[in-house]
Order: sequence, then structure tokens, then C-alpha cells
Amino acid sequence: MNALPAAAMPLEVLVDGAACREAWPLDRGLLYGDGLFETMRVMHGRIRFEELHAARLADGCRRLGISIDLDHTWAAVRVAAQRHGEATLRLTVTRGTALARGYTPTGREQARTVLAVYPPPGAGEIPQRVRVVTLRATLGENPLLAGMKHLNRLEQVLARRELAARGGGAFEGLVSSSSGALVSGTMSNVFLDLDGELVTPSLETCGVAGVMRAAVLREATRAGCAVREARIPLSALARCRAMALTNARMGLVTVHELDGRALEGSEVLRELAVQVAEA
Amino acid sequence: MNALPAAAMPLEVLVDGAACREAWPLDRGLLYGDGLFETMRVMHGRIRFEELHAARLADGCRRLGISIDLDHTWAAVRVAAQRHGEATLRLTVTRGTALARGYTPTGREQARTVLAVYPPPGAGEIPQRVRVVTLRATLGENPLLAGMKHLNRLEQVLARRELAARGGGAFEGLVSSSSGALVSGTMSNVFLDLDGELVTPSLETCGVAGVMRAAVLREATRAGCAVREARIPLSALARCRAMALTNARMGLVTVHELDGRALEGSEVLRELAVQVAEA
Repeated sequence: MNALPAAAMPLEVLVDGAACREAWPLDRGLLYGDGLFETMRVMHGRIRFEELHAARLADGCRRLGISIDLDHTWAAVRVAAQRHGEATLRLTVTRGTALARGYTPTGREQARTVLAVYPPPGAGEIPQRVRVVTLRATLGENPLLAGMKHLNRLEQVLARRELAARGGGAFEGLVSSSSGALVSGTMSNVFLDLDGELVTPSLETCGVAGVMRAAVLREATRAGCAVREARIPLSALARCRAMALTNARMGLVTVHELDGRALEGSEVLRELAVQVAEA
Repeated sequence: MNALPAAAMPLEVLVDGAACREAWPLDRGLLYGDGLFETMRVMHGRIRFEELHAARLADGCRRLGISIDLDHTWAAVRVAAQRHGEATLRLTVTRGTALARGYTPTGREQARTVLAVYPPPGAGEIPQRVRVVTLRATLGENPLLAGMKHLNRLEQVLARRELAARGGGAFEGLVSSSSGALVSGTMSNVFLDLDGELVTPSLETCGVAGVMRAAVLREATRAGCAVREARIPLSALARCRAMALTNARMGLVTVHELDGRALEGSEVLRELAVQVAEA
């Protein structure tokens, strides 16, 4: 970690009361959530769906105007993946240390990467019976941020706090947009069987465009199975007959119970789960 | 900075490719923007409107469920303020190092404070002629986050990027909510003379409840001068005759030009500026 560049040097920085000369407290990722991340599953030394993660990260960097040599970054991530074999990776990219006070980037910041390697998901992490509840927490709508996996995740933190506060041990909570459409789970995307049609919320105004969601959509297309991206009013959940959650770490997870109501299985979702697992 | 607590210890953390054993990369402020900040003006060794900053920070900590001894924190900030005499302070409070992977806080995190001391605003920082433009950037609406000065500030970063990309050197850009109401500037709150009435956008669904905004509202009440908090459609800006921006660092700044149109002065805003400066 380098010392602070002179131009951005505050007169003094105190961390928990003690003088600090490190650059971390002035990283724009910390100051403003000015950055992105990818959470990835590593199996047999390889990053699952690396090309989808790479595409999303590149898109996010472009949209935020973060300059970084992503080829170099991914080469290093691949080496770590190979070394660990089975793992969960979180790759964070921030715009780097602030070169000036205030929200405006100078355009000369040096992006910073953090790669954290965690164990792979444990065997008991997904319960036998997956229960999902609809939360009251909503997500703000902003097309400028929609789809990106950026570092502004307080909405998810608050939604998880609501889920935890409810008790009852539901595995995931569903969140809606401020205009009343279903968006996703707090840490997953969602696929629903509505009136016999497979649908997933469109993510034009909010939500994270999950890599596993993209993989499922891709496999569905390959299998000639129609999945519609649509605006799904929260009220439509009452008609939902089957549901699956997706995220890069866990894959496709079948939901057994929604807001206390048992769901049916879905042959299509079961087939897609198999196809994605083998992709 | 302490080393990582064992329970949260990833197998490995690489920062820009190099192994890192520090706690910074796992601070929830960096991981999720899980924290708050206050930007303050210090004059003559004292924090201007300290009680308003303290009230907002306490409210934010309560809403996010961040446990911290704020009396202790403010005592330390006051000491720094006294030592520097004239300064800009940024106090950041994060939920602290993650004790588990994922969005859900354990409730056992130890909040971290960062106090960065910068010089006071320079004499030439506010231009002779203050020009303001309306931006296309919008803000997502979320009552759970509205008003708080939390660390999720990518919307402001993108708005400032839009302002910079336009060129023309406008001092501030106005942003609206996703439902089309005026909210604020990118780094300031806003007061408008609309049809002879002084109004400021209500902040129930988005925006930061600025300390200088609160100070102006308080002084206005004391002076028996009505300021209405209201939903102001963006289209109302065409009828705006006078405008002022507020933030804790700069105080109350009179706007001379809005979207290329010269504004009139406002006797009431001028008087409020004097009162707030003397408060």
C-alpha cells in the first residue's frame, strides 16, 4: 500500500483516534462506494462463468469511468483460482485513492483491486427446504446504476437486516422497486413460473444483473426454452407456482415455500438447473 | 489497525496482487458502503453546527443499526477541531471489519471512525458568478436511506461526472428523483423563490438532509419567515426567481444563473444568509 499522494494529503487522518498515514481511509471505494465487485465460484481450479464475470466488470468500469488493465487483473485472479482449486472469490475494483476532496473524480486515479479468497459454499449452507419471504424493503430506481454490481449495497444490508429481524429462518427475502415491481432477492436473482410461463424481472431501473441469471438465460436460449424478462408487479407473486433463486456462488436454488405457501416444482427449472450445472 | 479477526479471515487477501493481512480490505464501509459520514466546517477551533451534525450522525447510526460510543467520538473530533482552528473535517463511521461473508451484519462488528482534516475552503472556491445547471442524472428513491449521509454516494459521483463532462464550468448541478421531483444539488441542498414563496425540496424519499439546510430552516423559523418543504416538480424551475445552495462547508451560496438564465436576488435569502453566518 503506497503512502498518500501529496495532492490529496489531508492535514491529518485519525483512525479510531490514532494518526494514520495509509491510503486506505482515502480510497474512493470507502469514501463513496466508488467501485465494483464480482463474487465468483471456483471449481476444479477454474472460475465458473469467468467470461460473464469479466463482461459485467468491464461494463461496470466503462459506465463508472474507471480505468484499469482488466486483462492483467483477470490473469492474476486465474492464478489464485488455480492455486485454491475450490473457493469463493470476491474481486473488488475501486477507483483508488482520492486525488482531490469531493465527489468528482480527477480521472487520474489509479484503480485498486482487492481479491479475497474464501472457502467454497459449505454442504449445509442451502437448507433442505428453501423458504423465501417478501420483504418490505425496496430498492431505489436508477438506470445509471441498474445491473451493475457496484459497492453501494446499503439497500441489501438493510434488506438482510429486515430478514434477520423477522426470525423464522427464511433463506432469502424478495425485494421490490420503489415503483412496486419485483426485482430480486437480497443476494440472488429470481426466476418464476407464472401461469405456466418462465419469467425473470427485467433489471432496467434497478437490481444486479447476476452472472448466474445470465447463465440461466443463455442455457434456456440454447435449449429453446423461452424465459421472458418482464416487469413483474409484486402482486403477481400470489400466482407464482414455482421459483428458483440464482447466484454465482450457489448456482440455481429451488424454492419450496414462498411467504408460507408451498410451491410446486417446475420441470423446466429442474432441467435448467442441470444444464447450468453442466455448462 | 488491528489484524483480521479469525472468524472473518479469508484464506487469502491480495491487494493489487500482493498479499495483505490488514483489516482495511474487509471493512464493511469498503465492501458495501456500510457506514456514514459528516463533512464539517471548523471556525475558530469550533465545529459549526456541531449539534446538528451530531444529531444526524446519531440518527443514521440508529437507522443502520451501527453501535458506537458517539460521545467519545465527538470528544475526539472536538479536540482535533480545536487543534486545527480553521479546517474542513470529514468524519466517517463504518460498521467496521466484516465478521462474516455476505451482506448480513452479525451485530457484533466494532464500528470504525476515520477523521480526515482538510484545509478550510479557499477564498476563490466560490466563483463571483455562481452558475447552476439541471442535470439528467437522477436519484433512486428509498425512504429507508432518505436523509442519511451514508457512504453509498455513486449517484453523486456520476452526477458530478456529468457536470464535469458538460464543460462550461457550472458550479453545481441539480438532480431530480426518479419520479421527477427536484431533490438537491450534487453536493448541496437548495432553496428556491417560487412565485414569491421560499421553498426547499422535501427529502422523504431521497437526498441528504444537509446540516446547513437544517440551520437555514431553523433560522427562518426563528425569524418568523416561512420556508415550505415541498415536492417540487423539475418543471417548476422555469418559474424560479431566486436560488441559494447550502452545505456545511460553504454555508449559503447565492445562485446567479440557472440553466443559462439570470436569476434575481432575494431579500429573504440574503437576510437568512446573514443570520446563518452569525448563528
